[in-house]
Amino acid sequence: RVDAERLWDSLMQMAQIGPGIAGGNNRQTLTDADAEGRSLFATWCRDAGLTMGIDAMGTMFATRAGTDPDALPVYVGSHLDTQPTGGKYDGVLGVLAGLEVVRTMNDLGLKTRHPVVVTNWANEEGARFAPAMLASGVFAGVHTLDYAYSRRDPDGKTYGDELKRIGWLGEEEVGARKMHAYFEYHIEQGPILEAENKAIGVVTHCQGLWWLEFTLTGREAHTGSTPMALRVNAGLAMSRIVEMVQTVAMGEQPGAVGGVGQVFFSPNSRNVLPGKVVFTVDIRTPDQAKLDRMRATIEAEAARICDELGVGCAVEPVGHFDPVTFDPTLVSRVRTAAEKLGLGHMDIISGAGHDACWAAKVAPATMIMCPCVGGLSHNEAEEISKDWAGAGCDVLFHAVVETAGI
Amino acid sequence: RVDAERLWDSLMQMAQIGPGIAGGNNRQTLTDADAEGRSLFATWCRDAGLTMGIDAMGTMFATRAGTDPDALPVYVGSHLDTQPTGGKYDGVLGVLAGLEVVRTMNDLGLKTRHPVVVTNWANEEGARFAPAMLASGVFAGVHTLDYAYSRRDPDGKTYGDELKRIGWLGEEEVGARKMHAYFEYHIEQGPILEAENKAIGVVTHCQGLWWLEFTLTGREAHTGSTPMALRVNAGLAMSRIVEMVQTVAMGEQPGAVGGVGQVFFSPNSRNVLPGKVVFTVDIRTPDQAKLDRMRATIEAEAARICDELGVGCAVEPVGHFDPVTFDPTLVSRVRTAAEKLGLGHMDIISGAGHDACWAAKVAPATMIMCPCVGGLSHNEAEEISKDWAGAGCDVLFHAVVETAGI
Ligand SMILES: NC(=O)NCCC(=O)O
Ligand SMILES: NC(=O)NCCC(=O)O
Repeated sequence: RVDAERLWDSLMQMAQIGPGIAGGNNRQTLTDADAEGRSLFATWCRDAGLTMGIDAMGTMFATRAGTDPDALPVYVGSHLDTQPTGGKYDGVLGVLAGLEVVRTMNDLGLKTRHPVVVTNWANEEGARFAPAMLASGVFAGVHTLDYAYSRRDPDGKTYGDELKRIGWLGEEEVGARKMHAYFEYHIEQGPILEAENKAIGVVTHCQGLWWLEFTLTGREAHTGSTPMALRVNAGLAMSRIVEMVQTVAMGEQPGAVGGVGQVFFSPNSRNVLPGKVVFTVDIRTPDQAKLDRMRATIEAEAARICDELGVGCAVEPVGHFDPVTFDPTLVSRVRTAAEKLGLGHMDIISGAGHDACWAAKVAPATMIMCPCVGGLSHNEAEEISKDWAGAGCDVLFHAVVETAGI
Repeated sequence: RVDAERLWDSLMQMAQIGPGIAGGNNRQTLTDADAEGRSLFATWCRDAGLTMGIDAMGTMFATRAGTDPDALPVYVGSHLDTQPTGGKYDGVLGVLAGLEVVRTMNDLGLKTRHPVVVTNWANEEGARFAPAMLASGVFAGVHTLDYAYSRRDPDGKTYGDELKRIGWLGEEEVGARKMHAYFEYHIEQGPILEAENKAIGVVTHCQGLWWLEFTLTGREAHTGSTPMALRVNAGLAMSRIVEMVQTVAMGEQPGAVGGVGQVFFSPNSRNVLPGKVVFTVDIRTPDQAKLDRMRATIEAEAARICDELGVGCAVEPVGHFDPVTFDPTLVSRVRTAAEKLGLGHMDIISGAGHDACWAAKVAPATMIMCPCVGGLSHNEAEEISKDWAGAGCDVLFHAVVETAGI
């Protein structure tokens, strides 16, 4: 068994860095707070006797050596970056549980055949730089390094410049590492495990996603002196598209979601009809056909809505992954571990995207989930219990040890 | 006749200050660009022999002395501040036409019984600090100075601090001046005069306005892993309110408008359902009963929409004026001037709010309008012709001279 107290202490220490405004965290990718969080993690890794490697995306790989020089490593990880108003566990739990796994191995004097690498993927959240899971995407060959470096935050700063600025640009070629297996432990971020009273989610799949960034072009005009009939109102078109996305998602129930989290009006003045509105539609479902259909419907309906209002409509996909099926052998290894430990468990589909989704492209991969209170995540009030954190970490430990071999 | 060339030159020189990104201007209230525009205007006033007074709101009053020491001044003015993506004429025309009137008086050696005061009201646009027409509102006793000083821009800076910072905090008590009459010359900002091929709008009324700032409270949650049924989606509620405002305004046709120009999502991240959405509804109509009814309907319907979604809904009025009737004597003086000059004219209702609306509370006031291309304003592409600018200025000159007396 792992030391749940030690894991919890580390979680609470990390949560001191980049505090939010309501008890959570704002430790967005490539900010000073991110750099500080990375340093703390690096210190802990050094204290645990791990060897740190950094790649050109800023991803951190902390290796515990194995006994077989030819054996590929088992990777265990997640991310330390957060949403602007994020929780203390989303991502962080997976990284620090990986660290707890190797700390426990150290305590037990346990030697594994395969090395074990605790991983902190850069820019998982995609809040500052879209798309999400950017570094693991480059690692898996889904994106080029140039594409990643050129991604811009809302202030226009690029990923490449910011990575250099915070001092975490590494020398390792991204994706050069080969993996024997990849495990990611994460909070569910949804309500199912808690409702079903299960400590462990055995993650079999991850739903697919499209992020569709719409740029609507209307005509800036005075809100007072421009008659209704003469308006080319990009904000009205945006509102109709938000409602339409809701309708499309409701029409694909169960097993689909759709919504809009980000909207920019321009010039964003009370008495100016917006000339430009930029916003991103997020749609997800585990069903490939449904995902394709939702995207097609939304793009067609948005075009119709804009046409009717005379508003220009451009769509750019800024995030995408198809539904993922995790490796059956690793999945059943997680299930068996939960059973052996006497923990209530159920199979579950990940509602959120994770670095495991990209790792699954280049290695056998899977995930373990623990419940979170009220299914709440991407909210500073995100909460889990120490027991939940520890139980999933125990499962992770057993699955990793079995995979790494003694 | 005034010198239309000189007026145009001054307009073009002022437009050099605080250039926009598309040929217009970004010279928002109490920015460095605003300070620079004020300095240029002050220089021109000094060169024209005027005496400058500045009040505690930062409004500039440039006086040309009259012959009767007991006669109250005739005020002529508008504003030099602009929208973030504003035009070169909205407001500026009225201030520089006032200057052109006194320059012409100087050229003719014309002495008037009443002094003439060219006025640059502070913060007319309300883009940076709501409400619009803030300084003239304090002047007319509608707002207190404390209220005005405490108004905040989106970065949280206050009017009072910013006025001090740019160095244009004056010593005059706001509203201490008494007016014999107030004239404001402005571009129409709507399509009517151009469509009717009239050079001069004789402004009889101004429509009333409410700015209703809504703060909607949802629950921040993950866009991927939060089932549709568990969402408390403040962005969806906002979208429904935008559509509802459109419906309410369409239902009150003709003679009413409604729209939304400013929206802030929080935390504004692609994969977070917004926990908070703040936006402002702008409704206007010249009909008092209609204005009251629209406001009541919109507040009731918004509450219903939010209730249905479980979203919290708070409304704060951040701008308001009732419909205004301008002074009949001054109105007919403008009409007569247009006729004497042989200019095509028509009576018109102002769609936008103007400092004249507040001045009308404390003095006989009216306005003159000229057409603008395509009715476009609050847009960098706002355009008028030199002839239009000059014709309205001629009418202004005649109306002012008649009112100031020779
Ligand atoms: N786990 C998580 O919240 N990842 C961010 C990417 C996503 O939106 O799913
Ligand atoms: N004239 C003008 O655009 N004033 C700004 C206040 C308003 O929105 O009407």
